[in-house]
Amino acid sequence: MTDASRRRFLTQTTAALVAAPFISTTSTRARAQQSRKLGVAVCGLGKLSTDQIAPALAKTQHCRLAGIVTGTPAKAAAWKAKYGIADRSVYSYDTMHRMAENPDIDFVYVVTPNALHAQHTIAAAKAGKHVFCEKPLEISVERCQQMIDACRDAKRLLGTAYRCQYDPHHLECIRLVREEVFGKPNIVQAGFAINVGAPGQWRLQRALAGGGALMDVGIYALQATRYLTGEEPVLVSAQETKTDLARFSEVDESMVWTTKFPSGVVAYCSTSYKAGGIQNLRVNADRGWFELDPAFFYDGNRGRRSDGKEIRFPQTDLFAAEMDDFARAIIESRPTKVPGEEGLRDVRIMQAIYESARTGRAVSLV
Amino acid sequence: MTDASRRRFLTQTTAALVAAPFISTTSTRARAQQSRKLGVAVCGLGKLSTDQIAPALAKTQHCRLAGIVTGTPAKAAAWKAKYGIADRSVYSYDTMHRMAENPDIDFVYVVTPNALHAQHTIAAAKAGKHVFCEKPLEISVERCQQMIDACRDAKRLLGTAYRCQYDPHHLECIRLVREEVFGKPNIVQAGFAINVGAPGQWRLQRALAGGGALMDVGIYALQATRYLTGEEPVLVSAQETKTDLARFSEVDESMVWTTKFPSGVVAYCSTSYKAGGIQNLRVNADRGWFELDPAFFYDGNRGRRSDGKEIRFPQTDLFAAEMDDFARAIIESRPTKVPGEEGLRDVRIMQAIYESARTGRAVSLV
Repeated sequence: MTDASRRRFLTQTTAALVAAPFISTTSTRARAQQSRKLGVAVCGLGKLSTDQIAPALAKTQHCRLAGIVTGTPAKAAAWKAKYGIADRSVYSYDTMHRMAENPDIDFVYVVTPNALHAQHTIAAAKAGKHVFCEKPLEISVERCQQMIDACRDAKRLLGTAYRCQYDPHHLECIRLVREEVFGKPNIVQAGFAINVGAPGQWRLQRALAGGGALMDVGIYALQATRYLTGEEPVLVSAQETKTDLARFSEVDESMVWTTKFPSGVVAYCSTSYKAGGIQNLRVNADRGWFELDPAFFYDGNRGRRSDGKEIRFPQTDLFAAEMDDFARAIIESRPTKVPGEEGLRDVRIMQAIYESARTGRAVSLV
Repeated sequence: MTDASRRRFLTQTTAALVAAPFISTTSTRARAQQSRKLGVAVCGLGKLSTDQIAPALAKTQHCRLAGIVTGTPAKAAAWKAKYGIADRSVYSYDTMHRMAENPDIDFVYVVTPNALHAQHTIAAAKAGKHVFCEKPLEISVERCQQMIDACRDAKRLLGTAYRCQYDPHHLECIRLVREEVFGKPNIVQAGFAINVGAPGQWRLQRALAGGGALMDVGIYALQATRYLTGEEPVLVSAQETKTDLARFSEVDESMVWTTKFPSGVVAYCSTSYKAGGIQNLRVNADRGWFELDPAFFYDGNRGRRSDGKEIRFPQTDLFAAEMDDFARAIIESRPTKVPGEEGLRDVRIMQAIYESARTGRAVSLV
């Protein structure tokens, strides 16, 4: 090790330790492990992979872009050229099993359409790779469970890519609840809506998306109500509405729902593919309130509190943060912060939301 | 008429005409009528009457405090001393029928506990007086109907005191929807919660209040969803929660609900007696959004729009505005802007909200 590389090593290691205060061991071996960069294969080279995940990989401490999985040769060529990916680390969805022979790839980041997550996760797990999977984990509870089982059987980690769990604004909101800074929470409100893009995209096709606004962005609001309260909802009621029947013939357009939690907290939430601009969460507690608005951007989130203080942190790359945390879990042989089971829970609740909207009855989750 | 009083008359009349552009007649007789001040008897001398309504009466153009109805001799004495009310215009709840002989009183403003509104409204109507009644109109649809019938039979007007319908911030929000400044609305959100005061007050007693947070403050959020959309909800789902069982043994503590409107707009709402600080309304439309937060204060409301513009108007006395409008309706022999039927509609929907929370089923309103 040269002096220059040693300085770099020490700098990286120190940064990793600062970023991950839960690491207790400081042995030389542990430090060497922490500085190791895991090879990541990005599976599905759509907009999210291109615009967010690939750039984020370059900002991670523990990951490097080592492979790709795509069904589009032109995308493979572009990524190879841009990121210098070796030929042997370029896969199609049909050749993922060959990853078993590729030591350069430690985990696969599944970024394909929702209804393909199980197929690609299971293929990666069977090839001996850990799997980090975009939300929603899948389109049914059964498929989520199959993914969890496959990773467990292969003794590989399965993580759900809930980036907000790494957003300092959200972490601060969780702290405010846990430490009861404004007393006990009573009513939580959250909503996330976008104006969905071009017709014809997979998000508007039931077979690939499994659902519409709720599965795609409402899931953030649902997640928020769960990690803010630290509880699992016991009852859900929902109403759906659809005004653009042509565009949203296969998936939900807009949804409002309420949930009740064991402590008595209730939440009221919304999502939409047509009412872009809803982007908030708010906790109303015994002695005050706080909120984020916007709450779910990649960066630029901010909030305020009833005592006049602002909730504002410097920009962080949430994709880099979640990938690094997943990598550290692999390196340290510990559970990941946001496992597949967490993704399954939301899918289960979303299915209950759909059921309630369809039947007009509150659906019990216990 | 002296020059001074003529000037005052003309000034008042002009102001009235500016404030009420719907007045088309400009005959001398009409002007004389418009400048007449109607005598108001305040029925129920609690905090709202003392702190808001009496001061507001002094700011009206068409009303003057002419009488009181109270069951508390000490309050009668205090109001008589402060406002110079004639002995013959001081009533108890048992002597209201004698108002029939008192030409000084044109209308009665009923500010008693919710479950006494019907009794006092019907007594006033039978005495030949118009009635302006605080919200909620009553605690059941049947009683609301009795009030409406009594006033109709007596050929007197019945108005519901929904002050927000006179708030320029709310009127601006209504305009933004009607003129589709941000396109068609999709999702409306509204909430109003307070930290209710001392235990033992009538608001916490079912027999007098009929309900808790929903009947008292949630009604503002419900009203807002109706006048913003300009539609009547067709379906309502609700969940109730109660964590302070002792204090809220008789009435609802916190409630979240969703409603669906014929055009497809959905609303998600909340109310609470424990989560003070929720005070907002928001319309999410095809091309943007706007919101008021705070929305339901007596003054100091303000809002913002997705195009960066602020919604802010000079302070107005909403109690004075609503009393003046009711007075003008009497003077001009026209329907009042917010009749008893409007109060009945909200009571009907609130009963459906309670039913949904109790049964776990969405309740149809058509």
